[in-house]
Amino acid sequence: MDNSVGIVSAQRAHFDTPLELKSGAVLPHYDLVYETYGMLNADKSNAILICHALSGHHHVAGVYADEPKNVGWWDNMVGPGKPLDTNTFFVIGLNNLGGCHGSTGPSSQNPATGHPYGAAFPVLTVEDWVESQARLADRLGITQFAAVIGGSLGGMQALQWSLSFPARVHNVLVIAAAPKLTAQNIAFNDVARNAILTDPDFHGGDYYQHHTVPKRGLRLARMLGHITYLSDDAMANKFGRELRHGKVNYGYDIEFQIESYLRYQGDKFAGYFDANTYLLMTKALDYFDPAHDFEHDLNRAFARAQADFLVVSFSTDWRFAPERSREIADALLHNHRNVSYAEITSAHGHDSFLMEDEQYMAVMHAYLERVAKELK
Amino acid sequence: MDNSVGIVSAQRAHFDTPLELKSGAVLPHYDLVYETYGMLNADKSNAILICHALSGHHHVAGVYADEPKNVGWWDNMVGPGKPLDTNTFFVIGLNNLGGCHGSTGPSSQNPATGHPYGAAFPVLTVEDWVESQARLADRLGITQFAAVIGGSLGGMQALQWSLSFPARVHNVLVIAAAPKLTAQNIAFNDVARNAILTDPDFHGGDYYQHHTVPKRGLRLARMLGHITYLSDDAMANKFGRELRHGKVNYGYDIEFQIESYLRYQGDKFAGYFDANTYLLMTKALDYFDPAHDFEHDLNRAFARAQADFLVVSFSTDWRFAPERSREIADALLHNHRNVSYAEITSAHGHDSFLMEDEQYMAVMHAYLERVAKELK
Repeated sequence: MDNSVGIVSAQRAHFDTPLELKSGAVLPHYDLVYETYGMLNADKSNAILICHALSGHHHVAGVYADEPKNVGWWDNMVGPGKPLDTNTFFVIGLNNLGGCHGSTGPSSQNPATGHPYGAAFPVLTVEDWVESQARLADRLGITQFAAVIGGSLGGMQALQWSLSFPARVHNVLVIAAAPKLTAQNIAFNDVARNAILTDPDFHGGDYYQHHTVPKRGLRLARMLGHITYLSDDAMANKFGRELRHGKVNYGYDIEFQIESYLRYQGDKFAGYFDANTYLLMTKALDYFDPAHDFEHDLNRAFARAQADFLVVSFSTDWRFAPERSREIADALLHNHRNVSYAEITSAHGHDSFLMEDEQYMAVMHAYLERVAKELK
Repeated sequence: MDNSVGIVSAQRAHFDTPLELKSGAVLPHYDLVYETYGMLNADKSNAILICHALSGHHHVAGVYADEPKNVGWWDNMVGPGKPLDTNTFFVIGLNNLGGCHGSTGPSSQNPATGHPYGAAFPVLTVEDWVESQARLADRLGITQFAAVIGGSLGGMQALQWSLSFPARVHNVLVIAAAPKLTAQNIAFNDVARNAILTDPDFHGGDYYQHHTVPKRGLRLARMLGHITYLSDDAMANKFGRELRHGKVNYGYDIEFQIESYLRYQGDKFAGYFDANTYLLMTKALDYFDPAHDFEHDLNRAFARAQADFLVVSFSTDWRFAPERSREIADALLHNHRNVSYAEITSAHGHDSFLMEDEQYMAVMHAYLERVAKELK
């Protein structure tokens, strides 16, 4: 593969210092699984942290030696000559705490019981993740990131970096994100959560001991999620009212292609993702609201930010529409931050942030070239 | 109650002539439950048929003697002096075939087995409903309706009346409807259906014999439905990010008011609605596509319509947005039909068609006054 970082492998960092969470709960110790691409320079100034979204993980770029088809989820963005140029930057992808790809999460062993945490795993917030990510940075000797970057829920973490650790991040790239969820956003999350919570195989979150998996609920959650990730137009263009077998069959099996797509995506996801992680991720989304402690004034919330910012939105994203990104940009400008804002015309809805789009890539390239120049 | 039709009672019509459905299936005999308000005039020219939407029924206006709080679902529209003025019109509301409010449906006894139909109840289409409604009109001696009227799925039935029986309907009022569902519309329906179909209590549709009710699935379907009935703005205004108990509790119980609302609505609905009827109604929505047999040309599809039309849409309806109503109006105008089109500025999304809104009421009033004048 041209411009691939090539074969990569995951690493594991163990943390023994208890992590006090925003909820008041404490994780006595935990692991974070991560991957790195490129080389950390001598003064450790070229590191970029990638924060993942709801279903993401640490495998951002490249492939594994024993899984040559398992390409990282943002491989189009990370590699030699790509926007996150691994000839220049030392790029880190991690699996968030609470995840289900190796970092400590609900399926990990609870030291207090010897069984998987399950329902006992604490609910996490974006702030908690940023705290845990800062500890990983400490471990790697990184005092300040050249950039922290993320899309969707990952964008919220990037934004939180500028608030939790203003001096530790030089640039923040916030893509397809919002400063908080709307009632409608929360509503969709709550339907997804209820699909899982009411699945008889969920067993109050302790399904591991029951040797069940709440696949029905997780499948529904993912089907619903997909509708909100795609634009109405993208669905119309890709599927329209096309029938799978050319004619309706007057029954409840798959008839329309869109049904086939959604059910397939739902089944696939339910086969590998952990339901408790899904719940936890959606809650972190719901809770994120940096203006909450500032009388709902985003301008005041961002007063302590010191970074430079790139804010990117996509025209057909109705999950986190361009207006939501502009709220972020406006509040940052109010605080005299350097803010670049790009609204990309794209047909792919919220999913656009993962897609190869010429204008989007050009914007990312240009901004990160500037970041690279600042390193010299 | 001022302007109420007062105490009403439901009637039942039994039909022995087998009904051949679009699917090819045949219902050997069936009942339709209906209510009427006002008096049929001597030449039987003042009848208005109201077609209901997904969760509607025949109890459109007034109250029952033994249930004085059970007010009909469109009581603001039907009564003396109201837009559907019962001093002038003879108004009919019926429960659609396949429904769960008295008309023959999946929970009715299947004459072939002596058990409830369940999964054996045939899938119905909008065309089938219109056919069954025409038979009810025959029974009541109504050759031509002064108007057929409906919102959402009811609007599709009203539209279909002008195509199935062009000479039998003088005016058609199509409110908050679309000429066909988009891929996104179908996708939402399919998630709702899958919630029901995969509920362990569904038993392939034959839950009546298992003495179970797929409440979990039906509850999720309704929660999801509600999101699509309300506008983003209406949700923001009504609920925003307001917390039920003033603070987050870092758990999966109800935290935000919007969650409380949705779960309450879901629970209530799951307590009385039949899951098989829900499935069947969503399928009828998916299938409706009058342009399908005309090479997807809506202009050609509407060539046979003879009625006059009122088409109404609501500015914040994102389920069937104003553009979708304009498709209907445009195709009718192409065929030189008399078409009035009103786009009502309303905050309530798709649900607006059920709401009391001054401009909406005025439009309905004005149009139906004209219909009344034509009677003389």
